Amino acid sequence: MSRKICLVGIGKIAQDQHVPSITASPDWELAATVSRAGSVGGVQAFDDFDAFLAERPDVDVVSLCLPPVPRFAYAARAIAVGRHVMLEKPPGATLAEVQRLDSMARAAGVTLFASWHSRMAKGVAAAKAFLADKTVTGGHIDWRENVRQWHPGQDWVFEPGGMGVFDPGSNALSILTEVLPQPVHLTGAELGVPGNRQTPIHAELTFTGGITATFDWLKKGEQLWEMTLEAGADRVHLTEGGNACTINGASAALTDLDEYPALYAHLTGLLDRGASDVDLSPMVHVSDAMTLGRRVSVADFAF
Amino acid sequence: MSRKICLVGIGKIAQDQHVPSITASPDWELAATVSRAGSVGGVQAFDDFDAFLAERPDVDVVSLCLPPVPRFAYAARAIAVGRHVMLEKPPGATLAEVQRLDSMARAAGVTLFASWHSRMAKGVAAAKAFLADKTVTGGHIDWRENVRQWHPGQDWVFEPGGMGVFDPGSNALSILTEVLPQPVHLTGAELGVPGNRQTPIHAELTFTGGITATFDWLKKGEQLWEMTLEAGADRVHLTEGGNACTINGASAALTDLDEYPALYAHLTGLLDRGASDVDLSPMVHVSDAMTLGRRVSVADFAF
Repeated sequence: MSRKICLVGIGKIAQDQHVPSITASPDWELAATVSRAGSVGGVQAFDDFDAFLAERPDVDVVSLCLPPVPRFAYAARAIAVGRHVMLEKPPGATLAEVQRLDSMARAAGVTLFASWHSRMAKGVAAAKAFLADKTVTGGHIDWRENVRQWHPGQDWVFEPGGMGVFDPGSNALSILTEVLPQPVHLTGAELGVPGNRQTPIHAELTFTGGITATFDWLKKGEQLWEMTLEAGADRVHLTEGGNACTINGASAALTDLDEYPALYAHLTGLLDRGASDVDLSPMVHVSDAMTLGRRVSVADFAF
Repeated sequence: MSRKICLVGIGKIAQDQHVPSITASPDWELAATVSRAGSVGGVQAFDDFDAFLAERPDVDVVSLCLPPVPRFAYAARAIAVGRHVMLEKPPGATLAEVQRLDSMARAAGVTLFASWHSRMAKGVAAAKAFLADKTVTGGHIDWRENVRQWHPGQDWVFEPGGMGVFDPGSNALSILTEVLPQPVHLTGAELGVPGNRQTPIHAELTFTGGITATFDWLKKGEQLWEMTLEAGADRVHLTEGGNACTINGASAALTDLDEYPALYAHLTGLLDRGASDVDLSPMVHVSDAMTLGRRVSVADFAF
């Protein structure tokens, strides 16, 4: 039997990933959408969230694809009326609000899933399994993409709360925090902020454990989402945003599902077990970088 | 019987507050100090922390008054050899590092006390008790002091990790998070950053629940550390950094001890119970403000 789900915020990420993942799965039925703009053919479309909550009590799972800033209010209202909630990444605009949602979900006895899609990339499980009993001695993350290609005209990414290059960078950090057998913490950062914008377009991060990261949002040509982690003589290399993995030069076994189908499969498991999954560690590293980072003014940016 | 304690980092705050609080208390014996600069007459002085740890196994409590950036390494080494640890505020330069210390202390079975001295101000307990069964409907924090008076020549406060005006502001936030019956989260912030510095000298914060805050570091004349919290028609007014409290216009009963003696009394209680006290909520609000805040360039600053 499939579960009914409502998708809120029918923008690019919803159309590209969430809708196809839900409609392709026998576990799920896309029963409603809420959006001021988009809709999905054949699915009841609301433009008001409270109207959806009132009219469709049969739909007890809500997946929020809104930008981070408005997300809290929607999640809080859904939890208050006993709906299970999945959050796109990052799970909120502030750490405090996600901690509150976590408490609210526990008190209400509903599932809260703060999703990190890159953790579901096909090579991540192999990297994690290999490193589980190792001591990581160093590593480097290279996460370089072209903001004009992936976020065309989306000025909000450079507004306060939009996170800038930490929007893709948090994907890398979600993998790092998943595969490391022991946590690390930031010891320094340099943030390149365009003179006419609020958030960084480039970041250089240094963590304990000999781990460094370069996040860049002006990469032309081939896009690069890679990380290498070393444990003594052992070397784990994740490429394609974590969707390929070599361990000591040999290809590792990959998981089957693509990232978003895997997220919804994970959500099914959480609901079956009555569990939540709220790990803020990638967002904590972002906050730490925004707090501890040295800001350097770089060239003005226009799309 | 008094407990032996070692004080690490014999600078201004140690000499002004920690040393007199410890030496005046029958619960404590200042058995050693570790510092590259200062020392305390009649107390064994080390300039190397590892030498202290090796030579004085009888001193099982360590209080760290170092600046936030180097503090993690000292705390981690102390916990690793089974010492209990008290941290000055803020408990670290990053959230992730304090979460790691918390995990390490739990694993080692030692006490970790991330102290917030303003929570011990004499009017805070009365404010908290009065608000415990109320719904706070609004409030304002005014925390205005003169950085030239309180941090003369301390350029590190304007360096990354120095927190700027959030150094005093976190005192206000430590009181707010202590007395509120329900948590709030930041919804917006404006950070005034001197053109020649890295951290804010002024901040305007807006929280949920109708609560706002003004932190200013350029206040001349009378210094102002106040907050008003409203719960419907009820009104709690904390002044003098929380050391005075009126409730609906009437003076509230104050606690006896000054802030730092009260911190060490609290530490005694934690050790007696084998408990820790690590509440990161004031620091989370600072990180949220640094992440979500809109930065506005203000006049260059020189001491």
